[in-house]
Amino acid sequence: MIRSLGDKRARTETGLFVAEGAKLVEELLASDFVVREVYRESLDRISHLKTPSDCLALVEIPKWKFSPAALKGKLVIALDEVQNPGNVGTIIRLADWFGVTDVLASEGTADCFNPKVVQATMGAITRVRVHYGNLPEMISSSGLPVYGTFLDGENIYKTALSPEGVVVFGSEGRGISAEVEATVSRRLFIPSRGSRAESLNVAVAAGIVCSEFFR
Amino acid sequence: MIRSLGDKRARTETGLFVAEGAKLVEELLASDFVVREVYRESLDRISHLKTPSDCLALVEIPKWKFSPAALKGKLVIALDEVQNPGNVGTIIRLADWFGVTDVLASEGTADCFNPKVVQATMGAITRVRVHYGNLPEMISSSGLPVYGTFLDGENIYKTALSPEGVVVFGSEGRGISAEVEATVSRRLFIPSRGSRAESLNVAVAAGIVCSEFFR
Repeated sequence: MIRSLGDKRARTETGLFVAEGAKLVEELLASDFVVREVYRESLDRISHLKTPSDCLALVEIPKWKFSPAALKGKLVIALDEVQNPGNVGTIIRLADWFGVTDVLASEGTADCFNPKVVQATMGAITRVRVHYGNLPEMISSSGLPVYGTFLDGENIYKTALSPEGVVVFGSEGRGISAEVEATVSRRLFIPSRGSRAESLNVAVAAGIVCSEFFR
Repeated sequence: MIRSLGDKRARTETGLFVAEGAKLVEELLASDFVVREVYRESLDRISHLKTPSDCLALVEIPKWKFSPAALKGKLVIALDEVQNPGNVGTIIRLADWFGVTDVLASEGTADCFNPKVVQATMGAITRVRVHYGNLPEMISSSGLPVYGTFLDGENIYKTALSPEGVVVFGSEGRGISAEVEATVSRRLFIPSRGSRAESLNVAVAAGIVCSEFFR
């Protein structure tokens, strides 16, 4: 059963996810999450990691309520089909670093309770809520200014950034989709100094953009 | 033979590495790298990727000469035991974005010709030279100011940063080693807004620090 929780369908059916590593399990036990079981031995057979850890917990998936009004005054990250679990987990981790408490995500974005995502958040999954749904609708309902990075955007270093807003990051291969792009009111660009570099990793771009908002 | 090149020993013995994906192979063919062979079919058996690509090249490992004098006036990234191949590749990619042409790396840092690193660079490996060796000695020989991020460092947003220097990033688990820390002349810190966040992914931190140097 624990091994099956690598698949989203099994997580949806059981309402459970898996967290590995003593530090992560301790953070979950200290959080509002409901931890069903903690296992401390024979993890080789049930681990989702290449290097099985010393501790694994079976945890209930929380029911986060999405309320557009609760985003007022906040900086919010929106993920449009970000498919790599490592990238999604790393973005949740940096959201936590910068005090971003809510992430909006399209249905095709990697599930935040995928074991690889949970692992990459390094515990931040206990402090950042990820809301999955129709991304353009969620963004529009927030009523906040919407930022996105595009090759034809304004130099982010020379742009006045508002303290509240939604910042959109697109898929690794195709960038921001047309439907989400239509919600963007402010187009930004991180200037490059490389002669032929074409793009940044999406989590690195998210880190740089959040740093600019908060500096 | 191609499958064996996932191991560093086989790469050292043959002087060859593997690159996958049509775009990456095209960049290598257009670069100074010597491409020995390009394969365009039956890649399932020889691929190093989970999703085998349409094109794979066998490429000679270049002999980059490390010259401390050539670093004069530049911003240089130093990697102290950064062990995750994805992180090393992502850092080479962002180095290219910010025009950083040279990376110094400790012997325990993931090898830049590991197939997973090559993949994560998205072609930047053709434009960024990575020098492996005794990291404290290489850093000291540069004669440049040396920056590192530490919990007790100065707020990076309020610090005057020089246009030239070495910026050190440490291992995912243990941070910067004592030997490398001894070479650091300027201690920096990326301020957090999260109540309990402990750290950023090393590639995200590298992106934020490089962005601050270049903004």
